[in-house]
Amino acid sequence: MNAVTLHETELRIEERPTPVPGAGEVLVRIHAAGLNAADLLQRRGHYSAPAGWPADIPGLELAGVVESIGEGVGDSLLSRRVCAIVGGGAQATHALVPASHLVTVPDHVSWEQAGGFAESFFTAFDALVRQADLRSGERVLISGAAGGVGNAAVQIARLRGAHVIAAVRTLNHGAALRTLGAHEVCTIEQVNELAPVDVVLELVGEPHFTRAQHRLAPFARVVVIGVGAGAKVECDLRILMATRGRIMGSTMRGRSIDEKALITKELTTALASSWENGDVTVPVARTFPLAEVNAAYDYFATPGKFGKVILTMDES
Amino acid sequence: MNAVTLHETELRIEERPTPVPGAGEVLVRIHAAGLNAADLLQRRGHYSAPAGWPADIPGLELAGVVESIGEGVGDSLLSRRVCAIVGGGAQATHALVPASHLVTVPDHVSWEQAGGFAESFFTAFDALVRQADLRSGERVLISGAAGGVGNAAVQIARLRGAHVIAAVRTLNHGAALRTLGAHEVCTIEQVNELAPVDVVLELVGEPHFTRAQHRLAPFARVVVIGVGAGAKVECDLRILMATRGRIMGSTMRGRSIDEKALITKELTTALASSWENGDVTVPVARTFPLAEVNAAYDYFATPGKFGKVILTMDES
Repeated sequence: MNAVTLHETELRIEERPTPVPGAGEVLVRIHAAGLNAADLLQRRGHYSAPAGWPADIPGLELAGVVESIGEGVGDSLLSRRVCAIVGGGAQATHALVPASHLVTVPDHVSWEQAGGFAESFFTAFDALVRQADLRSGERVLISGAAGGVGNAAVQIARLRGAHVIAAVRTLNHGAALRTLGAHEVCTIEQVNELAPVDVVLELVGEPHFTRAQHRLAPFARVVVIGVGAGAKVECDLRILMATRGRIMGSTMRGRSIDEKALITKELTTALASSWENGDVTVPVARTFPLAEVNAAYDYFATPGKFGKVILTMDES
Repeated sequence: MNAVTLHETELRIEERPTPVPGAGEVLVRIHAAGLNAADLLQRRGHYSAPAGWPADIPGLELAGVVESIGEGVGDSLLSRRVCAIVGGGAQATHALVPASHLVTVPDHVSWEQAGGFAESFFTAFDALVRQADLRSGERVLISGAAGGVGNAAVQIARLRGAHVIAAVRTLNHGAALRTLGAHEVCTIEQVNELAPVDVVLELVGEPHFTRAQHRLAPFARVVVIGVGAGAKVECDLRILMATRGRIMGSTMRGRSIDEKALITKELTTALASSWENGDVTVPVARTFPLAEVNAAYDYFATPGKFGKVILTMDES
C-alpha cells in the first residue's frame, strides 16, 4: 500500500506492506481521509499515536470499502462502503479498523464527504450528547463553528432541537452556518452580548472561553475539546458556584476499543437516518490527492476555511 | 423570640414575634446554631437570603427541639431533638423548618455539636457523594480541612473508603485531622508533590486550586464550594482534556425545598448510624452565648481555628 509517513516533521509518500486483518478487524481500501488539527500537532511531534496504532502514518479518519475481514467478522461487511475513526494510519491507501468501529456510508454520499465525517461527528456527538446531554430547547454556543467539528456540532445540536449559536472568527460564513442549522451567528467578541447559554462547546480556547464563562445559565455545561487559540484561561470559579455549572474536558483519540465501539453504536442510532436522507452533510473546504499531502497540510493551517480538508486516494 | 438581626453591617439582639408553622413546617426551639463563612459575607451585604427565608436574621444551620407542628406534619416529631440547614434565620431562639429537612440528633450528642452538624455535613456530603461520586479506594484531596466543612468531608471520605489527603494552612492540626480520618496531611505548598488524586474538594480557592489542577488523575472530579482565598484562577484546559476531568461548582443555600428534602433523606441513610455510634463527630473550636454574637463573628474571622464556632441559646 501507499502511505503518508512522518520523518521527524517531514511528510513523504512511501510504499508499505499492506496489513492483514486480525480477529475482529477489517482491512479498508481507503478512498478519502480527512485532516484534523491533531495531524498538525503530530507533525510537530506533540501528539503521538496511542499504543496499537501506526506510529508514523498520520490520519484519524477514513472512508473506503471493506476489502478483507479477520476472524470472527461477518462476511456481510465485505465490499461495504464504510467510514471510521482510527487511532492513526488513515492517510494511506489501506488501514485496519476494528469491525465494531465501522459506520456505513450512504450510497449517495461522495467519498470526499465520507472521508470527513467520522472524526468530526464522533467528536461533536460525544461532546454534545454523551457529555453535555444537550436537550431540546436548550441554548448551545459552539465556538470554531466554521471547522469540521463545529460544522458537525451545529447540525447535531439542530437535530436535538436546541437553539444553536455559532461563534466564528469572522462573519463571512454566516449564511453557510445558518444553512447547517445555526439560529444565530456571532463573532467571538459578540459572545459578550449573548443571553445566557446552557451548553458551550469549546473548540477554540482562551479568547472564546474567557468570554463564554460569563454567559452561563444555571446548570450550564462547558465541554472543552479544542484549545488551539490558548489553553491557559482565567476562570472565575464564583460563576461555576453561582450557576452550579460544570467544565469538562476530553479527547477522542486515546479512548479504548470498547468505548469507541459504544460511541459508534450510539452515533449510528442517533444519526444514520439523518445522514441517509441528507439531513446532515459534511461541508468540504478543499480536496487534495494523496501525493499533495504537504500542500494539504499547509492549506489546513491557513485561517478562513469553511469545512473539511480531505485527502483522496483514488488516483494511486 | 430573640434573634440576631442585621442592620446594615451591625448585628443586634432583638425581640421578634415567634413565627407559627405553616403546612409541612415545624417550629424549632433552637439550642445551638453554627456560624458559617456565608454569615460573614451576608454581614458585608454580599449574600442575601433566598426568597422565603428571614432576610435580616442570619444563620444557616440550627439544632433544637420541635416545639410545634403545622398542618400535615405527624405529631411524632413533637419534642424531637433535631438539626437542619435553613436558608436563613438560624441565629435566634426559634425558627421554622420544613419537616422534610429535619435530621434527628442522637441522644448522646451535645447541642453545641448538633448545632454545627447540618451545614457542614450537608455541604460535604452533597459535594463528595452526590456530585463527585467518590468511590472506595479513590484518592481525595480536601482543602481547608481544618474548617467545619473540611472536618465533615474528611470523615465522610473516610467512611466511603477513600484515601484521604487533608490540605491545611499550617500543620498544627495534623494529629486532629488524622483522628478524623485523614491518611495524609499537607500544606497547600506541599500539594505540588502529591501523587495524582481522583477527587478534589475545593474549599479555599486560588492558591490551592492552581496547584491541585496539576495533580489530577484520569477522570478526576474537582468540586468547588469555597473560594474565600481567591475565585479567579489560572486554569490549564489541556489538563482537563488530557485527564477527561471535570470541574463543578455549587452552593447549598439557594436550592429548592424538594432538593434539600432529597439530600436530607440521602444523608440520613448514609450517615445517621455513624453519627449515632460516634463514628462521625463535630469538632467545636469555641462556643459563644447568643448575646455575644459580635464576638463570635469576630472570632470566626480569625485564622488558625479547628472546627466549628457555635452560638448557644440556652441562657436566654
